[in-house]
Amino acid sequence: MREGALMQPDEAGGGTAVTPSAEFPPLRPDEVATLRRIGARWQPDRPAGGLPVDPTLDRYRGRPAPTRFGRLAPIEMFAGQPGELVATPPAHEPRSRPARAVSRLRRVVLGPPLRSSAVLYERMRKLVALPILSSDLLSSVAYGPEAMLTVLVLAGSGALGLSLPLAAALVLLMIAVGLSYRQTIPAYPHGAGSYIVASDNLGVTPGLTAAAGLMLDYVLTVSVSVAAGVHAVTSALPALAPFNVPLGVLVILVLLAGNLRGVRTAGNIFVLPTYAFVVAVLALLVVGWWHAAGRGFAPVPPPPVPAAEGLGLLLVLRAFASGAVSMTGIEAVSNAVPAFRPTEWRNARTTLGWMVAMLVVLFAGLTVLIHLDGLVPRPEETLLSQLGRLTFPAGPWYPLLQASTALILLLAANTAFNDFPRLLFFMARDGHAPRRFLHMGDRLAFSNGLVALATAATVVFVAFGGHTASLIPLYAVGVFLAFTLSQSGMVVHWRRHRGRGWRRRLGLNAVGAVLSGLVLLTAAVAKFAEGAWVVVVAVPLLVLLFHRVHRHYARLHRALALHPPTAGPPAGPAVAPTPGSAEGEELPQQVRHLVVVPMARLNRASLRALAYAASLGQPTLAVHVAPEDAEAERFREQWRAWGDHVRLETIVSPYRAVIGPLAHYLEALHAAGPELTLTVIVPEVVTRRRRHRPLHSRAEQRLRDALRALPGVVVTSVPVHLTE
Amino acid sequence: MREGALMQPDEAGGGTAVTPSAEFPPLRPDEVATLRRIGARWQPDRPAGGLPVDPTLDRYRGRPAPTRFGRLAPIEMFAGQPGELVATPPAHEPRSRPARAVSRLRRVVLGPPLRSSAVLYERMRKLVALPILSSDLLSSVAYGPEAMLTVLVLAGSGALGLSLPLAAALVLLMIAVGLSYRQTIPAYPHGAGSYIVASDNLGVTPGLTAAAGLMLDYVLTVSVSVAAGVHAVTSALPALAPFNVPLGVLVILVLLAGNLRGVRTAGNIFVLPTYAFVVAVLALLVVGWWHAAGRGFAPVPPPPVPAAEGLGLLLVLRAFASGAVSMTGIEAVSNAVPAFRPTEWRNARTTLGWMVAMLVVLFAGLTVLIHLDGLVPRPEETLLSQLGRLTFPAGPWYPLLQASTALILLLAANTAFNDFPRLLFFMARDGHAPRRFLHMGDRLAFSNGLVALATAATVVFVAFGGHTASLIPLYAVGVFLAFTLSQSGMVVHWRRHRGRGWRRRLGLNAVGAVLSGLVLLTAAVAKFAEGAWVVVVAVPLLVLLFHRVHRHYARLHRALALHPPTAGPPAGPAVAPTPGSAEGEELPQQVRHLVVVPMARLNRASLRALAYAASLGQPTLAVHVAPEDAEAERFREQWRAWGDHVRLETIVSPYRAVIGPLAHYLEALHAAGPELTLTVIVPEVVTRRRRHRPLHSRAEQRLRDALRALPGVVVTSVPVHLTE
Repeated sequence: MREGALMQPDEAGGGTAVTPSAEFPPLRPDEVATLRRIGARWQPDRPAGGLPVDPTLDRYRGRPAPTRFGRLAPIEMFAGQPGELVATPPAHEPRSRPARAVSRLRRVVLGPPLRSSAVLYERMRKLVALPILSSDLLSSVAYGPEAMLTVLVLAGSGALGLSLPLAAALVLLMIAVGLSYRQTIPAYPHGAGSYIVASDNLGVTPGLTAAAGLMLDYVLTVSVSVAAGVHAVTSALPALAPFNVPLGVLVILVLLAGNLRGVRTAGNIFVLPTYAFVVAVLALLVVGWWHAAGRGFAPVPPPPVPAAEGLGLLLVLRAFASGAVSMTGIEAVSNAVPAFRPTEWRNARTTLGWMVAMLVVLFAGLTVLIHLDGLVPRPEETLLSQLGRLTFPAGPWYPLLQASTALILLLAANTAFNDFPRLLFFMARDGHAPRRFLHMGDRLAFSNGLVALATAATVVFVAFGGHTASLIPLYAVGVFLAFTLSQSGMVVHWRRHRGRGWRRRLGLNAVGAVLSGLVLLTAAVAKFAEGAWVVVVAVPLLVLLFHRVHRHYARLHRALALHPPTAGPPAGPAVAPTPGSAEGEELPQQVRHLVVVPMARLNRASLRALAYAASLGQPTLAVHVAPEDAEAERFREQWRAWGDHVRLETIVSPYRAVIGPLAHYLEALHAAGPELTLTVIVPEVVTRRRRHRPLHSRAEQRLRDALRALPGVVVTSVPVHLTE
Repeated sequence: MREGALMQPDEAGGGTAVTPSAEFPPLRPDEVATLRRIGARWQPDRPAGGLPVDPTLDRYRGRPAPTRFGRLAPIEMFAGQPGELVATPPAHEPRSRPARAVSRLRRVVLGPPLRSSAVLYERMRKLVALPILSSDLLSSVAYGPEAMLTVLVLAGSGALGLSLPLAAALVLLMIAVGLSYRQTIPAYPHGAGSYIVASDNLGVTPGLTAAAGLMLDYVLTVSVSVAAGVHAVTSALPALAPFNVPLGVLVILVLLAGNLRGVRTAGNIFVLPTYAFVVAVLALLVVGWWHAAGRGFAPVPPPPVPAAEGLGLLLVLRAFASGAVSMTGIEAVSNAVPAFRPTEWRNARTTLGWMVAMLVVLFAGLTVLIHLDGLVPRPEETLLSQLGRLTFPAGPWYPLLQASTALILLLAANTAFNDFPRLLFFMARDGHAPRRFLHMGDRLAFSNGLVALATAATVVFVAFGGHTASLIPLYAVGVFLAFTLSQSGMVVHWRRHRGRGWRRRLGLNAVGAVLSGLVLLTAAVAKFAEGAWVVVVAVPLLVLLFHRVHRHYARLHRALALHPPTAGPPAGPAVAPTPGSAEGEELPQQVRHLVVVPMARLNRASLRALAYAASLGQPTLAVHVAPEDAEAERFREQWRAWGDHVRLETIVSPYRAVIGPLAHYLEALHAAGPELTLTVIVPEVVTRRRRHRPLHSRAEQRLRDALRALPGVVVTSVPVHLTE
């Protein structure tokens, strides 16, 4: 199988849409053909005959049959037409009382379960999508200009004037990258994440590299946004400053809970703050510029700050790379195209346009205003807070600004909660991430991905003490890695497809790619020692991990792939069978049985296991492991008293171990007859109360563990329930 | 079943001897008769026929067949005559490499495994038994007199003179209890632990009360002896004092390892120190008394100590009860009679006589000498150490005294390691303790009991900071509780048996019982607030726990007891079958099968499970749980392409859970046909490397857990091994 065989989502019928059926990919035509050939040779051991119960449960409906282990009438849990049962909500309720309490609590926090059919309706209007998707991008202006100035001020307050040309360069970059992404959306109407674009056009490894960059980006988006949001709060209320780490962790947990509830609820909660933030910052800009106009736009000289470093090219580049974090989140729309209402790509593209325009206005306006007001970054208060206090010395505007800043930063973190699980879903569908990320929880959210993101972000947040400034150097590299690969992918895309105006589009994307690549290099080199090395090291490791995961799944796929049956039932012992061939059969007539029943003592549990074994009508062997000869002889006497109906083999284990010799004996039997399927039938006493378990040996479980590695050994537990 | 039915060791054939076969009790005659009747009705589904392999492995011998999952040739692991295989040591070796490394390390520390047949030869000569069994008793003189004086001195140094009459009373008590125990040994030649004597003569609850007292006693013996031993070391080397807790824990671990090796090794290691201690203390007494004789036995006045409490009756009683801890360990011999060489009881009785004589000499000699030398207890140095320094101002005698004191205290702790697992063995055989305490490890030691003791002793030792004085108040109550019950049991024994001289024997035991009971009351009342309340509370709780354990095992026994088969195969649906009746069968012809195969997708693993199911020749039903209607329809199409050989039922789970609806569907099937045995056949993908497990869903395990509570449901795992 070629490396990419699992990588063809369209071939697998899933497209780039998100569906709850992704866990059950359909068969390819050649697989169906193989299936037909296998089926044609199927010969059951006996004619099929009728079933002893009606599997549709129709005949029993309305006849409540409360069982001992559940007060519900389970038959009523299923509704549906003949031939198809539909599980009703009670069929999802766990059985034990503590588990039911947890389930109820879960319902209160996360809401009632949503049906799979509801997945289509969980779409966003533009006015809802805009605040959700733009929050990451727009909120970046809350820390982007500050990040840039924090680097510049290292060369003393005189260097702060460089912020204007750097801001101009960043605005150009924003427009170029924005235009570049604008083209991507219609080309990938089902969602144009950097991972998909890079995979499609550049190949698997670039795709995975982009994915690794994006994943780190999402984790850092959560950490940085939460850190900056908490900083906005502590700037206004310095008394809360010592509690920034627990506050941030609490915020991450609230975000997780909100997202586990599902996307629409999250959208409705979070619509207002984005607009409030935009209005508050615009008000700040208008009033601030009005004041500046009043003094003829003469810049206030900043307070003198001594230089800690010389003003070299490296410092300027570091400042530029730090300022570029203002662009994080620009890719959010293109990832989330399928979450828009139809026509998805058109609505998405419009939303992106608005977003970039607003970004440019806010970023440029703030940077210039900071320069005009002569403000300098201070660790205990954000620049935006300083600007707010200066511009709105009284009245409700300053608190409103800080509150909306904190809230939009939470929204930004929320964007990552939208995108990270979706990225993992696509990767899992291609076999590059664990399959559990395909599963949609009962609220149609990718619960596993959400929990993974919250965990990783919490670890990063706590590890860096919740300081925005410490996290920024890690941030830019992953983002621009994904940008660069995505734009480069688009360049290849246009070369291949050559639609109308492809040269212009290629050109635009090439400009975007080159600029993003330059920022990537700048960030990686200039901020290497300050933390970027973490990302530079982590990306290749992640790519390696994804490849390893894929290799395992590819092998699994190969091992489990259907292949046509061999000529006939396996030959007799004349032909030396290869070890492990007992697992080769796919037809009932090929299975040759030997049933083995380990008997510790003769009681109802073990006799029931023996009766079960004998009722299968296959050759049966009972095995007893005795600590001493005398005990073995005694057991054989009991066996004869019983009637010796089943062949008994006793093994004396002079060192008193039971599981080891039994497992090795089964291995020896397997070596003697590799073509046999050994079915080991073990009685299992099930206690009604958990606290009684330590009173029982875990022999059944230990035997199962010991036999796990042995091919062709089937383990069957025959339970005996204690009813008292 | 009456409460005591599990309590008849002789009826069960085990006697009071310790045997590795105790885990496999033989059947009673009525059980064998039932077995015969069950066997007479046994009708297998098909005629037995030959087995497809030779279970004795004879035919394959000498044909090494290395399997993929083990480089050993497993057939060679078994030797033996026809009809009986004997596992050779390689059959006990674990398969995986890290487990084999652990196993090798274990061999180095604990020695090679011992065969069950070696159990008879692990007996002790008297000269070996004496140091092992007397160490607990004799070592008590290292802290007993000091414990008494520590209480007396609270009333000021003037009260120290009371130690002489108290010591005289204690000597009388020692002789009385010693004579009392001396009579017990021949009456119970198979081991006369207080538990057995009290159970036999007074009933179950007194027996369990004695056992609870003894168990606490053993735990405290380890803690107190180790604490006192470490104190002996730190008295000589004060620099080690800050490390007393880690030192003590290390000592407990060394004792555990030594005992896991087995009793003979332990004996040989520990013979010398007891004799050294006796010689050292006798030397101390001779020289000390010589000096005292030199000054005409005029007592040196003790240094003035201010009184902290008034000299009341309660204080004197407390001092008496504290001094009585010198008697702990007097029961060791009677517990360990079967460990002696034949004639066991005679050797044991002789040993007990020597022990009590030595105890009296050492205890009385030391108490009087301390009085003559005017010594006062000090927390930083033991009284024995003070006496040693005073008597041997120079030369090797003082270090020898301290070293042998420390070593004999370790030996005393070792006595508890001998007796505690043995007590648990007897209790487990009667069903009052978990059955795992019946199992003899591969060194013929009761490994589980040893580990339990070491754990409990470490917890107590650490909790009390390793201070002997804090532990003493807890100590006496448990010991004298066991003494009292044991002696009272003997009184009843003599009344019942009335052998030669029974009146004299009864009288002696009655005196012992009354005196022990008085000390018990004194200790419980006088030291209640100082710690004895812990024991007063713990003993009833332990007794309750033992009763609960017994009740569970009695129910288990009842549930698993063989009973004759019912009239015929279960009647048709006309007779409403009781829920859970599917577990009632003990005959193959009674088992009515329905095989259910959950199918997530069609691949080699699931088809193999289906082929396995069909090869059993029983009615078979395949179940598919789909997240959406569309997916269900797609799966049914694939099923038709395969040939629709097996009835398929699809369940749409609109909330995407799989395990819950599947488990509830099986419950519904069970409710519809309670007489059926449902066999659920689940494919299980077994990864070769543990690190690949997170990439697979644990569906098989989760389904197993969900189905555990359901009666009549058999779960079968059909493994598919990934070979890469």
